[in-house]
Order: sequence, then C-alpha cells, then structure tokens
Amino acid sequence: MIGKKTWIIPDGFLQPKSTGEEVSHEAVCVLNLGDQGADIRLTFYFEDREPMDRFLSTCGAQRTHHIRLDKLKDETGSSVPMGVPYAIKVDSSVPVVVQHSRLDTSQEALALFTTMAFPVTEE
Amino acid sequence: MIGKKTWIIPDGFLQPKSTGEEVSHEAVCVLNLGDQGADIRLTFYFEDREPMDRFLSTCGAQRTHHIRLDKLKDETGSSVPMGVPYAIKVDSSVPVVVQHSRLDTSQEALALFTTMAFPVTEE
Amino acid sequence: MIGKKTWIIPDGFLQPKSTGEEVSHEAVCVLNLGDQGADIRLTFYFEDREPMDRFLSTCGAQRTHHIRLDKLKDETGSSVPMGVPYAIKVDSSVPVVVQHSRLDTSQEALALFTTMAFPVTEE
Amino acid sequence: MIGKKTWIIPDGFLQPKSTGEEVSHEAVCVLNLGDQGADIRLTFYFEDREPMDRFLSTCGAQRTHHIRLDKLKDETGSSVPMGVPYAIKVDSSVPVVVQHSRLDTSQEALALFTTMAFPVTEE
Repeated sequence: MIGKKTWIIPDGFLQPKSTGEEVSHEAVCVLNLGDQGADIRLTFYFEDREPMDRFLSTCGAQRTHHIRLDKLKDETGSSVPMGVPYAIKVDSSVPVVVQHSRLDTSQEALALFTTMAFPVTEE
Repeated sequence: MIGKKTWIIPDGFLQPKSTGEEVSHEAVCVLNLGDQGADIRLTFYFEDREPMDRFLSTCGAQRTHHIRLDKLKDETGSSVPMGVPYAIKVDSSVPVVVQHSRLDTSQEALALFTTMAFPVTEE
Repeated sequence: MIGKKTWIIPDGFLQPKSTGEEVSHEAVCVLNLGDQGADIRLTFYFEDREPMDRFLSTCGAQRTHHIRLDKLKDETGSSVPMGVPYAIKVDSSVPVVVQHSRLDTSQEALALFTTMAFPVTEE
Repeated sequence: MIGKKTWIIPDGFLQPKSTGEEVSHEAVCVLNLGDQGADIRLTFYFEDREPMDRFLSTCGAQRTHHIRLDKLKDETGSSVPMGVPYAIKVDSSVPVVVQHSRLDTSQEALALFTTMAFPVTEE
C-alpha cells in the first residue's frame, strides 16, 4: 500500500482577489494507488477560532482528485473562509499521497507554489 | 545505491496556454547516480478515466534527464493530455532521485513551482 | 503526537522592496495538533555574524500560527534583518508541523515559494 | 548532529536571461548547526556529458551559506554552464541541511521556486 492515511499542510490561505482569467485558489491533490476508493476528511485549523472538521471528499481507486478548496463545502454548506490563515489535516480511509498547491492571481501575473504535504507515520 | 525505484507526484497539470518566449510545461527531473542506465516508466492517473501507463523514458548512469511532459509520447504515439488534472507514478529499473517542476506562462509573466516527488519505500 | 519539536529552514531572506498592495514577507507556518499550547523559539543564522536566538512566539493547541518574520521582534526589540541571507531553526516545547513560505513583490507581480521545513528526528 | 552529509537536487537550471534589477540565479542554501566548519563539494550532472565535480565551497560552524550557482567557479576556473539542464549532488564533511531555490527574471516579473534537497541516509 503506497502512501499514508494522514497528511498535514500548515500553510493554507485562500486569496480573495483574482485578476485575469484564472481564479486564485488552492488545491489538495490526492493520488489513490490502491484498489478501494478513499473517503477523505479535511479539517481546517485557524489562528483564533475552533477547527472546522466536516469537509468530506473522495478519491476513487487508481484515480487522482485535485480537491479545489475554494469550491469545497462542508456538511452544513459552509465554505473554507477566504483571506485568513489556516492549516489543513487530511485523513483518508486508505493510504494516499497528498500534495498542496496555491495559485495566486491577485496581482497582474499569476504566482504558484507547491509542496508535498507532511506524512504522518502511524506509531 | 542512492534514491528509490518508485516516486509519486499527485499534482500534475499541463497548462495549454503560453505567452512570451517560454512554453508552459512540466518536467519530471531524474538523477541516476548508479553505474547502470535507468529504464523509466511513467504512469498518469486522472480524475475520471483509466490510467495511461505506456510512457517510457531513460536516464543514463551518472546522468540527469529532465523529462519534458509536454513533449512525451507513449508507445502508441499518444501525448499527455493538456488542461486536465493528473497525477504521476515514476518507476525506474534502478534507484534514482525524482523532482517535479511546472512552468506556467499563461499570464504575462511566468510562474514556477517545484517539489521533490514522494519516495516509495520498498517493504 | 503528530510532528517534531525541531525544524530547519536553510533559505531565509526578507526582501526589502515591495510593490502594489502586498508587502514582501516570509512566514513560518506552524500547526499544533496537540492539546497543550506550544512555546516556540526561532533562531536565525547568518553568513557572517553570530546567530540571533531570542525570538519567541506561541501556537495554541488545535491552532495554527503563520508567524510573519517581517513583523517579529526579539526580547530586546530587534527585528529580523532585511536584505541578507539567513537560515532558521524552529524549536517548540511540543511536537508541531512547520512549513516556510516567501512572498516577493519586489517586481511588478508577486512571486511565491514554499516548502516543508526539514524535521529533526530525536535520537 | 543535525542533518546529513549528502543531499540531492535533480532539477537545476541557470536561466541565461534576466530583466529588471534582479539577476536570474540559483542558490544551494546550507545550514551548518555543528561546531566545526563544513567543507562542501558540489558535483553537477548533465544530460549528455560527464559530470563536473570540482566545485568547492564552505560553511562555517553555526552559519548559513547561500551558495550562488551563477557565481561559483571550480578549481579550474570553470563556471556552471547556463541554459542547460543539470542536477546537483552536495557532499559535506559534516552534517548540514540543504535547500535549493531558483529565481527567474527572464520575463517581466520574477518567479521563485524552492524545495528541500533530498537527504541521503548513510547505510
């Protein structure tokens, strides 16, 4: 089984401003190399309020899912708040590999960043 | 032997638009520090279709190869599809080290990102 | 307990110039998934002078803190110097996960980069 | 002892073009947390020619060194070639931590990327 069930991303931020054709956004990119679909839960942590832990998603077997955080809704219909710092914990029902990327078009040209999420080793 | 035989990259995307002199592209950058050439297979995973697993490449001993994904063809002559999210598994016949980078020139100035691929430990 | 108590970031630099609405800066992004608050000490290393080791911060339990390095003051009121290369060691009283990001607006459009910090394993 | 003696960076490239005030470059950023100075050797690997292995540098104890690859000369006075893909192996006499970053100003606004180098575990 390739990957881990839990991954951590400390630097999250949804840029509220966009220019040009591309909308500023972040994506949690999941690859599921197993033979069962992955049930995914994303928990968002903030600087000054309680975590939001009811964001659910999926990733099929032998599929990738680039989960757009600007489009994600939780079970109550809430969105990820824009313009505030957050961090993310990704929990999956089966091992997956997780990478996190940001696209920022708040100024005239777009900017990108990416990193592998931090894998949590079961102990 | 330095490196691993399997590496994972969840966030792949070939930007179809380019401006200026540089063409938007991604590269899978391989370093082979061994004394035998590496036979490399790239498998591409998608959100809504079966994986494409017939992309082959090589990297000589004591050589690097920055494999341009916008130029790669599989055994049937197919290219990596542009404008859709994908993920990549890189398998090598010998241990190598793999990094993945994207250059996006869809807006007026270029943007870059990079990360080490996720190494798979044989168990 | 998820994370490590010590993290390393070799490439630090505070860009003194900014254009547009965003100020060039770096952030050390911490996520504390434990049930106790984290006391954090940042040590800055330079190319040609002694380290500065009296920068303190915190991160609450189940909270993130994106520590802005351009705003940080040490116990003597000193700031992180701008326009010179530095490296950072982050020490926490409890395990945390650390990512480092830079925003550079010195030219007409902003640029971003990020990476997970390097985790130090206790031995 | 924090860090490793060998680090790998598969994606190297010195952009020959620059615009504005910043010169396109790459830096190998080293942090030496030990109490002895580090003697550093950089080996450059190419796609179609033999490696260049005579680039030497240093990093003092409790110091960082952001080694500018566009300024580095080897023992014979040769520079790192511009405009061609390469990969880098960094060997240090003592454990260090290594990060690699690129600044590209070939178009109107600068672009940045960074990643931790891949640490080689002694076996």
